[in-house]
Amino acid sequence: MKLAAKTEGPLAGLVVIDLTRVLAGPYCTMMLADLGARVIKVEMPGTGDDARHSGPFINHKDASSTSGYFFSINRNKESIALNLKQEADCELFDRLLASADILVENFTPGTMGKLGYDWDTLQGRYPSLILASISGFGQTGPYRELPAYDMVVQAMGGVLSLTGEEGGPPTRVGVSIGDIGAGMFGAIGIQAAVIERMRTGLGKHVDISMLDSQVAMLENALVRYQVDGVVPGPIGSRHPSITPFGVFKAKDAYLAVAAGNDRMFPRLCDAIGMAEAKADPRFATNPLRCEHHGALKILMEQALAARTAAEWLRHLKELGIPSGPVNDVAGVMRDPQINARGMLIELPLPDGETLITAGCPVQFAGEKRQEHSPAPALDQHREALLRELGI
Amino acid sequence: MKLAAKTEGPLAGLVVIDLTRVLAGPYCTMMLADLGARVIKVEMPGTGDDARHSGPFINHKDASSTSGYFFSINRNKESIALNLKQEADCELFDRLLASADILVENFTPGTMGKLGYDWDTLQGRYPSLILASISGFGQTGPYRELPAYDMVVQAMGGVLSLTGEEGGPPTRVGVSIGDIGAGMFGAIGIQAAVIERMRTGLGKHVDISMLDSQVAMLENALVRYQVDGVVPGPIGSRHPSITPFGVFKAKDAYLAVAAGNDRMFPRLCDAIGMAEAKADPRFATNPLRCEHHGALKILMEQALAARTAAEWLRHLKELGIPSGPVNDVAGVMRDPQINARGMLIELPLPDGETLITAGCPVQFAGEKRQEHSPAPALDQHREALLRELGI
Repeated sequence: MKLAAKTEGPLAGLVVIDLTRVLAGPYCTMMLADLGARVIKVEMPGTGDDARHSGPFINHKDASSTSGYFFSINRNKESIALNLKQEADCELFDRLLASADILVENFTPGTMGKLGYDWDTLQGRYPSLILASISGFGQTGPYRELPAYDMVVQAMGGVLSLTGEEGGPPTRVGVSIGDIGAGMFGAIGIQAAVIERMRTGLGKHVDISMLDSQVAMLENALVRYQVDGVVPGPIGSRHPSITPFGVFKAKDAYLAVAAGNDRMFPRLCDAIGMAEAKADPRFATNPLRCEHHGALKILMEQALAARTAAEWLRHLKELGIPSGPVNDVAGVMRDPQINARGMLIELPLPDGETLITAGCPVQFAGEKRQEHSPAPALDQHREALLRELGI
Repeated sequence: MKLAAKTEGPLAGLVVIDLTRVLAGPYCTMMLADLGARVIKVEMPGTGDDARHSGPFINHKDASSTSGYFFSINRNKESIALNLKQEADCELFDRLLASADILVENFTPGTMGKLGYDWDTLQGRYPSLILASISGFGQTGPYRELPAYDMVVQAMGGVLSLTGEEGGPPTRVGVSIGDIGAGMFGAIGIQAAVIERMRTGLGKHVDISMLDSQVAMLENALVRYQVDGVVPGPIGSRHPSITPFGVFKAKDAYLAVAAGNDRMFPRLCDAIGMAEAKADPRFATNPLRCEHHGALKILMEQALAARTAAEWLRHLKELGIPSGPVNDVAGVMRDPQINARGMLIELPLPDGETLITAGCPVQFAGEKRQEHSPAPALDQHREALLRELGI
């Protein structure tokens, strides 16, 4: 007997077997699960996904604990514990693969081969199966077998060299964009392979490199370097070619203002009472403002010091000048727009408490949101899966 | 007559009409084009995509200029100039839509309706058409009609509050992750809708918010805040719950080291000659190292000062300790792995010079890379498109 797919959501009909651990892979498969695929995590007996052992931990009354980290990136998935180095477990794994459309893994390249599940073997046995491999450096090239973590690929991919204060040390992006970016490109590659398979009937091997993913997110830095001949470095919170476009300090706190174009800038000057700056030839065009960004920032912060960030934001919003608060995480959780969009999903923990996780940003107008299930306990779905397979 | 789709790549068979400007939308449609969809940009006559007027500019011998910015995010697309406020141009646009699978736009919500192309109208006339809308705040919620730029959503979405030096001001991620993240989620939503359409025959309206996209990339910050009760702030280049995991200064330059787990840390100590740190009870476990990260960093940088970053990296690589250079953009362009993966695509400019752009990180093992065409001139494909439509 085969596993049934789910029936709700755009990816209904697809079954994903998920060998991934920690972040890039689980983030990728959570997106697929959010969109309606049935995702079955296959985890090492006893220990499970490494992320189960990463903090922050929620300590329950019964002295057990749950990793909040694991909980936040594994909703809507099922779990079965299998040791792929043991024959009986491999037989069960093969039964799962026979029901599957997609297999996702994020081991170091070569590991799947050692387990007997290299791409050639998989393709021979399951011609319609899509294999997605997410790794630090990809399945090819001189670094393919090197270990990598988010920090390493953020550093090697250039984004670190562009982030931070002007003249200061390179600064890590405060979220694991090395993993998350690769997980997102993984979901794009998997869906592309599903679309191709609908024409050809055949699976393919999606090969995502975390380092490649960083390079693809460099935006205009590569071109700026080639055109200007200057290696771009960190420039704090301003934009290299739009001014004013950054965070500015008001009486009590920072706020973000993006009023770089030549129509918007005079309106900003009127709004915050900068008559002199409005008439100043140094600030007449965007290229001139970029050249004199330091002088303009001083004038803007002098003007903004008159009121609180909240007062200015009300005023700028009324005038249609692009601006917003610098939300910390508490501010994000209070934000009316983020709440109205259903981007904060509250899920039950094992002892009945709840934890809020970030929702799926892929939304479809006019459709109601799916029901979500919390991240599974290790091996939680073994019996139900065996029953479904008729074992 | 209808437009033909392309025949190579996983998204062969799909025709995309592209009304997007600047960054989030064009980045999304470039991914679709890289994967084999036929993408036709519909641009305002005379001015075209706003990004055509954003630097850096390449000045040609004939006194014309090309925006390197535009060039880097519009390869593999065609261009036709149409004014959707003029009836004759709308008729032509309708002919394009009749051939299309997907329409992508990133106007402020409401604009499509003013042009006569709101979702209800489109769905009524082209039931299988997928509409993807990418906007600052999405098509619903109290902020839906507010203008937004990358800076504003980075600030509101929380990532800015997590990036920067400890105790310092919030720092912008040095690439436009607000736009790029939304473009990536847009591609995921579009492909999901294509997969659903293969079952149902019906299109749907993909509704992507840049702000939602930022929230979805917050990683473990939401959970940390809820569990620890402390609002997380910027912490420079280290990781909140893994130590050592960051950039460290060697004799001449920074390097990235990710050796946070308890197996790897003693090996790192041996590798760089930190016998005392290896035995120090403050550093015995990852939670203890996180607590004493400052003391550990001082010891590591004392040890690393003995050799250059390049020398250490050779040594650490041989020992299998996850590490890498902090590449600036010039280093990215020289990197052997990035080059071996074909991630730097050289494309011809109008006068025969070339410019390198970041390639597509969605790769398929064993498949040769597609041929790429450079970003189009405004209205470059008008005649060919009209001919193909039999006009």
